[in-house]
Amino acid sequence: MKLIVQKEDLLYAVNAVSRAISNKNTLPILGGIMMITTESLPGKLVLSGTDLEMAIECLIDADVQENGRIVAPGRYFQDLVRYLPEGPVTLFSENTNELLLSYEQSEVAIRCNDPEEFPALPTAEGNIRGQIAVSTFRRMVKQVSVAAATDVVRPLFTGILLELTGSKLVMVASDTHRLAIAEDIWQGENITEIKLILPCRTMLEIAKLAVSDEGMIEIVASRNQAFFRFENLTFATRVISGQYPDYHQVLPASSLYCCHTTIQREKLIESLERASLLSRDAVRGKTNIVCLNWREEGLLLTADSPEVGHIYEELAAIVEGTQIESSYNARYLLDALKVMDNEQVSFHLTGESTPGIILPEGSEQEQSPYTYLVLPVRLSR
Amino acid sequence: MKLIVQKEDLLYAVNAVSRAISNKNTLPILGGIMMITTESLPGKLVLSGTDLEMAIECLIDADVQENGRIVAPGRYFQDLVRYLPEGPVTLFSENTNELLLSYEQSEVAIRCNDPEEFPALPTAEGNIRGQIAVSTFRRMVKQVSVAAATDVVRPLFTGILLELTGSKLVMVASDTHRLAIAEDIWQGENITEIKLILPCRTMLEIAKLAVSDEGMIEIVASRNQAFFRFENLTFATRVISGQYPDYHQVLPASSLYCCHTTIQREKLIESLERASLLSRDAVRGKTNIVCLNWREEGLLLTADSPEVGHIYEELAAIVEGTQIESSYNARYLLDALKVMDNEQVSFHLTGESTPGIILPEGSEQEQSPYTYLVLPVRLSR
Repeated sequence: MKLIVQKEDLLYAVNAVSRAISNKNTLPILGGIMMITTESLPGKLVLSGTDLEMAIECLIDADVQENGRIVAPGRYFQDLVRYLPEGPVTLFSENTNELLLSYEQSEVAIRCNDPEEFPALPTAEGNIRGQIAVSTFRRMVKQVSVAAATDVVRPLFTGILLELTGSKLVMVASDTHRLAIAEDIWQGENITEIKLILPCRTMLEIAKLAVSDEGMIEIVASRNQAFFRFENLTFATRVISGQYPDYHQVLPASSLYCCHTTIQREKLIESLERASLLSRDAVRGKTNIVCLNWREEGLLLTADSPEVGHIYEELAAIVEGTQIESSYNARYLLDALKVMDNEQVSFHLTGESTPGIILPEGSEQEQSPYTYLVLPVRLSR
Repeated sequence: MKLIVQKEDLLYAVNAVSRAISNKNTLPILGGIMMITTESLPGKLVLSGTDLEMAIECLIDADVQENGRIVAPGRYFQDLVRYLPEGPVTLFSENTNELLLSYEQSEVAIRCNDPEEFPALPTAEGNIRGQIAVSTFRRMVKQVSVAAATDVVRPLFTGILLELTGSKLVMVASDTHRLAIAEDIWQGENITEIKLILPCRTMLEIAKLAVSDEGMIEIVASRNQAFFRFENLTFATRVISGQYPDYHQVLPASSLYCCHTTIQREKLIESLERASLLSRDAVRGKTNIVCLNWREEGLLLTADSPEVGHIYEELAAIVEGTQIESSYNARYLLDALKVMDNEQVSFHLTGESTPGIILPEGSEQEQSPYTYLVLPVRLSR
């Protein structure tokens, strides 16, 4: 292999594909970055990294003088490229054991892994196809990912459910204590109704790398794999198998709301942050429990911890309907409030021990761009 | 105690004094922040924190209605104040067990520690007195602290030696592998020659909190304690006892230089960073060893690691005198180069296995604002 690339292009690509590289050293080859040039892609260097669950591929311009492939050790290579001087870098390898980088009057030789061991990356195939605006995708992933489970005991809940029709995309995540739903438009090609469960971690990585505020993400998927493509990047991810529970059954009909409230989002966030500090209760084994008491005159928010102290806050709020007092994990409320950007939010309650629904102010649950369901904490008194 | 302070003043003070609070929970009371108002300081709230080695005190404006004192739990209090709404906050305590903070329509009560247990803070006394510009102090501490030892086995070397005369201040630090010396002017009051060894950690904290580019730091010290005062902050620190080795004996006379070199500082930093990546040698138990070969045509920098690969760099440099090849711990060289801000640096060598001296380009060792001595690594070949 022999080619010349610009340092800044190489660094961008190496940083991007490194996001898929496994930190766990189960298989050393997965710590590598594959670099390939082929006749079918003249003038391009293809870099890729994978942890077997997700793969990231990045294409950059290169002055290719001889085709080839090599697997560089990921972390070393990333650090090295970061410190290269600006300008052209020559990548050269006579065999697959060693890669020679030359720049200015200097050169580095690094030992490489056997490319035969590198897992074959899937090609973007599937009959589920469509496009979504980068900014919309990012908004949806940010808003639902907070509700996904992080423990791998129930793999289904570490995923985000995607419900796709021709014009509407719905994303859903839940760890069984709360449920987040985001919906928006996309441009699906001849899709009636398809459900896919994709790893939340991969979705977050895509949202992180899709930084441009314009442009579209192209989605190609089958029952087993999904591909996301934008600019010079392609993400491949496995689809989590299993049947996602019917979340519609959990969502209370809006006719069951007995208390409608509207409150300043930022004010509630600050108040919950303060209350979180005073809600650690080592004795009862509960953490972050805050009590929300919705009254005609506003919201009373209280929390106490025998060790630290207690807090009492009065917040201005519009409260209509039955006065309700319920306790929540403050973290669950904060997660939702922090990923919203509305000045005011609506918190609808169905009872003291039944679900509450947080919505952007003014939207109806049935067609809200974002719906967050949260269960109160049952306290043994 | 009853008083009203502005949230931003309180947050500034709490953040400042928290820097002295111990993270180790040996004595719970040391995790606290003492707050006092007295008749002798009307209209002021005094906050302080200490880990017994260093103490930080901060004075802020307060509308004091009733004098008193209280010790709030440091970390909780800091987090809480951070999340308070902008504007006035009332601090109230009926007894020393509980502090009540009220703001807007809300209030928090936090449990407090017994102020009787809080160590008495020393008052700024001593016959060593003077003033130094904040920016000068910061420059000197930054440049010498990199050479101080971090292991507490030899407490002397975890300190910075201060040599004070009436007009000149010299700071020195060493971990026995390298030695850093910074000197500059200060305004000492009738001082012939005084030596003090102060903990490097404290000096770094002072440099960190002295953010303004103007103003003076006032120094008051005795044989046992030193005080640094600027704006509304006072630092107290113990003096490390013992006799600092005579560093003049280690410094080679400039007549012993056999090779004079001048090189671009940034270029050498980048090259050393790259070489560091390829200089980990698990087999020989050496890390970060790079070889510097100074030749007439410039610097050859090489490093190799059996596991990772090898690097060969040619850097432009002016080299006069004997050609010399020595190996160094790249980290030691980087530490010095990164705290300098000169475009070019001079690296003077006295032999292959004897000390090298790094100076800002154009300065003579005898009166350089910064001198960094580094020993080559002896390799068993």
